[in-house]
Order: sequence, then C-alpha cells, then structure tokens
Amino acid sequence: MDVRDYVESHAREFLDDLKQWLEIPSISADPDRHGDVRLSAEWLTVHLRNTGFPVAEVWETGGLPAVFAEWPAADPGAPVVLVYGHHDVQPVEPLAEWDSPPFAPAERDGLLLARGASDDKGQVLFHSLGLRACLAASGGDGSGSPPVTIKLIVEGEEESGSEHFADLLERERERLACDVIVISDTTMWAADVPSLCTGMRGLAEAEVTLSGPSRDLHSGSFGGGVPNPLHAMAGLLAGLHDEQGRVTLPRFYDRVLPLSFEERELVARLPFDEKQWLADAGDSGAAYGEAGFSTLERIWARPTAEINGMWGGHTGAGFKTIIPRSAHAKVSFRLVADQDPADVLAAFREYVQASTPDGLQATVTVAPAVRPSRSPITSPAVQAGRRAMERAFGREVLFTKEGGSGPEADLADILGRPLVFVGVGLASDRMHAPNERVEVSLLLRGAEACAYLWEELAAIGPDLR
Amino acid sequence: MDVRDYVESHAREFLDDLKQWLEIPSISADPDRHGDVRLSAEWLTVHLRNTGFPVAEVWETGGLPAVFAEWPAADPGAPVVLVYGHHDVQPVEPLAEWDSPPFAPAERDGLLLARGASDDKGQVLFHSLGLRACLAASGGDGSGSPPVTIKLIVEGEEESGSEHFADLLERERERLACDVIVISDTTMWAADVPSLCTGMRGLAEAEVTLSGPSRDLHSGSFGGGVPNPLHAMAGLLAGLHDEQGRVTLPRFYDRVLPLSFEERELVARLPFDEKQWLADAGDSGAAYGEAGFSTLERIWARPTAEINGMWGGHTGAGFKTIIPRSAHAKVSFRLVADQDPADVLAAFREYVQASTPDGLQATVTVAPAVRPSRSPITSPAVQAGRRAMERAFGREVLFTKEGGSGPEADLADILGRPLVFVGVGLASDRMHAPNERVEVSLLLRGAEACAYLWEELAAIGPDLR
Repeated sequence: MDVRDYVESHAREFLDDLKQWLEIPSISADPDRHGDVRLSAEWLTVHLRNTGFPVAEVWETGGLPAVFAEWPAADPGAPVVLVYGHHDVQPVEPLAEWDSPPFAPAERDGLLLARGASDDKGQVLFHSLGLRACLAASGGDGSGSPPVTIKLIVEGEEESGSEHFADLLERERERLACDVIVISDTTMWAADVPSLCTGMRGLAEAEVTLSGPSRDLHSGSFGGGVPNPLHAMAGLLAGLHDEQGRVTLPRFYDRVLPLSFEERELVARLPFDEKQWLADAGDSGAAYGEAGFSTLERIWARPTAEINGMWGGHTGAGFKTIIPRSAHAKVSFRLVADQDPADVLAAFREYVQASTPDGLQATVTVAPAVRPSRSPITSPAVQAGRRAMERAFGREVLFTKEGGSGPEADLADILGRPLVFVGVGLASDRMHAPNERVEVSLLLRGAEACAYLWEELAAIGPDLR
Repeated sequence: MDVRDYVESHAREFLDDLKQWLEIPSISADPDRHGDVRLSAEWLTVHLRNTGFPVAEVWETGGLPAVFAEWPAADPGAPVVLVYGHHDVQPVEPLAEWDSPPFAPAERDGLLLARGASDDKGQVLFHSLGLRACLAASGGDGSGSPPVTIKLIVEGEEESGSEHFADLLERERERLACDVIVISDTTMWAADVPSLCTGMRGLAEAEVTLSGPSRDLHSGSFGGGVPNPLHAMAGLLAGLHDEQGRVTLPRFYDRVLPLSFEERELVARLPFDEKQWLADAGDSGAAYGEAGFSTLERIWARPTAEINGMWGGHTGAGFKTIIPRSAHAKVSFRLVADQDPADVLAAFREYVQASTPDGLQATVTVAPAVRPSRSPITSPAVQAGRRAMERAFGREVLFTKEGGSGPEADLADILGRPLVFVGVGLASDRMHAPNERVEVSLLLRGAEACAYLWEELAAIGPDLR
C-alpha cells in the first residue's frame, strides 16, 4: 500500500480522533481551562501510544504540561527528527461570532470547523497518520520501525507566550537531541500554491517613559518655557526612521543578512495580490515601508521598528491646556537573521538617551525577546522538505517567510539544529479568530508530505545542515 | 480726608463685608452650587446699592448670572470706565489640604484666607472701597458723583470658561459702552514690586486624529508594510517645531508684534529668579524654548505650540505587537498680538493635511478660541494706571504680561476699547489651589490705586487709546 492510499483509507479514523481531541477546550491563556490543557496532554499521550510510539509521556514544566514521544529508527545511524507542535489553543471570545460552538467540531464542505483545527491540533495529529502511512508503505504490516528516529515535542503554552518552553528545552536537551527540527505550525501560500516557510522574524520590545515636571503644568503660565515630554517623545519616535523608511538605530542593519538573488526571485514568483493584501490589512489605504523592497520582502525579510502604543497628557474629552508631566510609548522591533535582540535593545537605549532633551529623564524597560530564525533554502533539510511537499501536492513548492514567530528560534538556538517548516494551514483558516477551520484535504496532504519527508531524510543521512 | 486715610479708616468695614461675601460658596463649575452663585450675585447687587451705585442689578445670561452696576459722573463729558471682575470661584478639592475651611474666611498675619479672597472677590470688592475713598477725597460728604462714570460688570462663569459672557457682551453692548476697560483679576510681580499686566496670550486648540486600518493589525504579519498611524502622528507632532524651537506652521509669525526695545528692557528689569521659577514649574530640570528669547519673553510675549495630550494603540500593561488603527493628539497654541486664532487654526489644518502620509486619513476638530490681548505701555490709559499704582504703592511700577487669559480679549474686541489691568494678587495667593489667600494690605492699596486712577482718567478725558 502506498502512502497516499494509506492516508486516504484512514482519513475517517484520523478525523474522528482529531474531533475527539478538538472537543477538549485546552485554552492556555484561561486559568479556568488549565485542567483541560492537562487533559489534552493526556489524550495525546494515549493517542500516540495507540499509534505505536514506544515512548509517549506527559512532561511537566513550570506551567502547563507538554507531551514528549519517541519512536526510534531500526538503524541507529539514521537521522533523528524532532517534530514541534502545540496542543493548547487560543481563547474563543467573542463567542457570539462563532457559527457553531468552538469545541463541537463540525465538518462542512471539506472543512473541519473548531478552535484548534488548524492551529495546531490538526497539524500535530497528521504526524501520527503520516508516520503510520510511512510504515505501511515501507513494507510489512506497519509494525516495524520508521526510517528515521521520530521525536515529538508538543507544548501546552504556545498560545500564551511559551513562558516555560525554553527552560524545558534546556532541561531536556539530551532527550530532545536531534539532527533536524520539523515545525508543523505554519501556513502555506494557498491551497493551490504549496510552500515552505524558510524564516521567521524575531521580536524585541521596549517601553519608554520621558518624565518632566513633577506635576502637569498650566500651559498658559509655563508653555514655551520648559520642555514638554510629549514634544520630546514625538521627536524621539519620529526620529526612529529616516526618509527612506530605514530604522536609524546605530548598528541596526550591521548583522542583517541580505536576501540572495534566488530568494528575491522566489518571493517575486509568488502570486501576490497587493490590493487583496491591503484589504486584508484592515483596508489599509496604501502600502508603505522601507524603500527598495517589495511588500513581501518588507514584512518577511526586513527588520522594522513599530510604535505599538503611545500616550501622555490629557486623553479624555474636551481640551486641557497642560504641559504633561510625562510621555510614554511602547515600541517593538521585528528582527531578521542574524540580528541579536540584545544588540538592538542596547542600541535603542543609546538612542533614547541621545534623544532626550536636557531637563527630561528617560527610562526604558524591555520584555523577553525572540530571536529571528532562518532556514536557508539551500540546506539539505529544506530541500528534502521541498521534495516531500512536491510529492504530496504534485506541483512546484515555493518558499515563504513569516513576519512574526513563536518559540521556533528557541528550538533552533538551544538544540543547535536547523529548522524545516512543514505546515499546511492557510491564511484563511481564521487562526486566533472566531470560526477557525482547516481544509481536511490539506491535513491529509500534510500527513503524506511527512511520510515522504522521513524517507527523504533517511536517504540523506544525519548531516542535514 | 485723603484717599489713604479713608481707605485705612474703613478697612475693617471693608473686610467684614468681604468675609460675608466669601462665605457664599459660588463655585460655578459645580451644578450643586449654582444656587450659591445666584446668591453671590444678589449679595453683590445689594452691597453695591449700599455703596451708593444708583444702578446695581443682576443680569441673566444663558448660564449663571452676572452683576451690572453704574454710577454716572456729574460731567457727561467725563470718561466712562467699565470695570471687569467675577464673583464665581474655583472648586475647593482636595478639601483635606485646606488648613481652614474654604468658606469660613479667616484672618491671620495680615492675610485673609478663603476661596475667592484673591480670585476674584477681594479684587472686585476693593472697587467699592476705592470709589468711596475717591468721593470722600474729592470733597464734601461723599454723596456726590465720581469724576468718571463707573460701570461694573462682574460675571459668574469665569472659573468655568465664561461660556455665556461673549453673548452677554454682544447683547448689552449699549449699556456696557465705555472709553476704557479696567480688569481687576490679575497679579503683580511681588508685594514689593508692584506691576501692571500689559498683555495676555490668546489660545487656539485642536484635536487631530490620524486613521489607518479599520482594525488593529498584527505587527508580525503587517509590520513594515503599511503606514502606522502612530509613526505618522509622531512625525506630524515632532515637525511642529524647528531646531530653534520656532513653530513651523505657515504664516505663524507673520502677525506677531515684536517686543520693542523698551518692553524688553522693562521685562529684563524684573527681578526674575529662574531657579525658583523652575522649582515652581514642578521642579522642571531646565528652561527650554524659542532661541533668542528669555524665559519671561517666551512665556509672555512669544506664541507657542504645545502638545497637551496624545494617545493611540496599546497603552495598558505589558506588550501588544500591533499596528494600531488610529492615533490622536490634542494640540494648543498660545497666541500673542496681533495673531488671529482663525488664521492659526487654518494653517494647522494645512500642515496636518501636508503631513499625513498616503493611506492615512486626518481629521481636525477645533475648540472656541481666545484672541490675544495687549495694552501698549505707551497708551494714555496704561500710563494713567501706572501713575495710579505708583501713587498707591509709593514706588516705581513695572510691566508684566500673562501667559494665559480669560475673557479679557472678548471685552476688548466686542466693546472695542483698550484694557488696563489693575490687579493686586500675587503668584503666592494659591489661586485655584487649597488655602487660597490674599494680602489685606494689597487689597487696600488696590482700592487706593483705583481712587487715583479715576482722577487720572478724568484729567485725561475720554480719548484713552
């Protein structure tokens, strides 16, 4: 039986399992649902044991539990693959906007509708189907071993910031040791344009306060005679970009890897409809950004500085003629390989100090940062992923990037191995929004792609960088 | 009996009357006290009739009542003076910070303590004492007529924005007709540095909104690709000033009257302690403002642009990586003669349109504006005021300006007559703050100064511009 036959003939069983799992409201951001997150982890370990994994266990963390499973290859020299996914889901508010209850999975027109159907339970579970297909296709009754050692790490806090995930990786570094990391938590360009993600931007965040007088001052009495923290903040924020839309922080671009000709060419080949993209961007009136780059390059491959919030002075109704005592802003930087968030935040602190006029005091606080990640399209692991996807979809697979990221960079950094993104979600899956859904046929193609991927990786051997 | 003897020998009676009036909590901003504002108006009309005013009446407005009184000169060719003041007072919160109850007037160490003692009941009431002194000194038993026709307009909404005052002026233009307007609602430089205010800055206010996407966008997905309203707002606000601290609006300085050499010299002669001023400015760390001007010139005689508030995006705890849908700011301009608020607001609208990037929409709303007012130190009326003050205080009288203003510009504009500011408050009177107070000796000097002023004006005749 070949991979596709196996997948198609076991689709019903796969879907019934998935629907059972989707009924568990494992919302990590909601303390009232933490029991359900644990139940979700337990459900998954039972399912993986039933699938045939010799090891499948709940791993405790400082927060909500993760699931670890392992199925060794017969050949001890075969590559070791670590698959990453998450079993927690986003909150469901506003509930009134759901057409069917978020935790009562429904099938309709080839779609499966439920919170978590695409992000990420559907994309975790296709791995057990794919692995069974791989075993069935490699001959025998499917009771043998896979061509590569498969490890699974499925965390329970991804939708609430992966707070304890890096600690878990550090602690379990040995058992998680691998040659390549496969991430199944991303989207493709379109159902008919399969693609592989090859990088995610990192993130550095900071809050700035400029403090002036000890109280709000009357602008009639003092206006024009003392520095106004709001003026200074406006200047500081406006000065973050030059007229080309480039970020002005010292050393900001020093470690930014330029896009190769091939990468730019592949991006340009994606059927990008800018008008539709602007419509999806809350009906934004115009594209805007760093000169010399296309919109996709700007949001995928170029670092940014964004003001996420600013406030100070009188913000209520009517007018109040004051010079306010302070001004505040929240600023974030999307980073690309090989920028280091710590460098960027240090440069931002320098910039703030240099931009603060005499008579005002600046304070900067920062949040935990996320490093950018990158999977070079020329690496053997990414090439294997591309071939596997092409076999599953029967057409050319293109490359994308993602503008934001979760804990993927931690995986790559702490385990020191390359990432391959095999995801089959779509932008239209309404992840994080009401009426989340997934195309069932794409989950099946994902299962197939992974079955091929294990064969492809086994053929290359363990040196996958 | 000369003026000073009369004032000194009637001081007790004057203070007892004033204390009675101060017991009425005429807080115009508090709807629960509107009955008291009316009572205060009635008290004043009775008092003025007892003083000898043939006409003293409550004038209804669209809001709280004003008081009008008139005492004609015997000589129909004598100048007509209109005295302006107000009988409403500021709120008293925080009540816990008062050393004695705000509406139980107390005398201590030459001070009278009560809400309204300085702002403005004390400075209104010294006019009746001064007028009686003037009559007593001009011979006879004080039953005669004053050397100039005295009209009084004492409004009841000054502390809550004088909302109906301009309408009242328009309506009663005929009965308020005069040759000069005397304002008694200002401060002197210091108890031992008597001074005359010679101008007040005007005010124009606007609120700007820059709107972008129809909803907040995820900065990972869209950051760097669409215009961020907060960036645009920061740029717009930062661009309001050049590096010299000058306002960049088109035509902004075209109608600004330069300070004359004499005016600058008089300002420079004031014993200004910048260190103390910065301490009073909420411990501001440094003076700051338009290059080429001293701090006093900046706050009195130069126009400004101030950001009074700005907000947009995520302003709560923690971080939220969004491109917000909109950004907002409240901006105000302090104006000096001969700037026109309408011109300035039109220029601001132009500036906002020119500063709004493609893809964002700008809206500007404006508030009712206040025109700047100016009393040239060379005018006969101001010179008469200076001589009167010098006679009362026995020392040289200097000139100041004020950085903000109330309804004075409306008086000058609508009635078309020059303003003379005869005020004896002090910056240390704690107007608008807990423990308001006034120096009794200065109220008596104010009464004296006005008695002299009527003589001085009578000697000049009705052409006072």
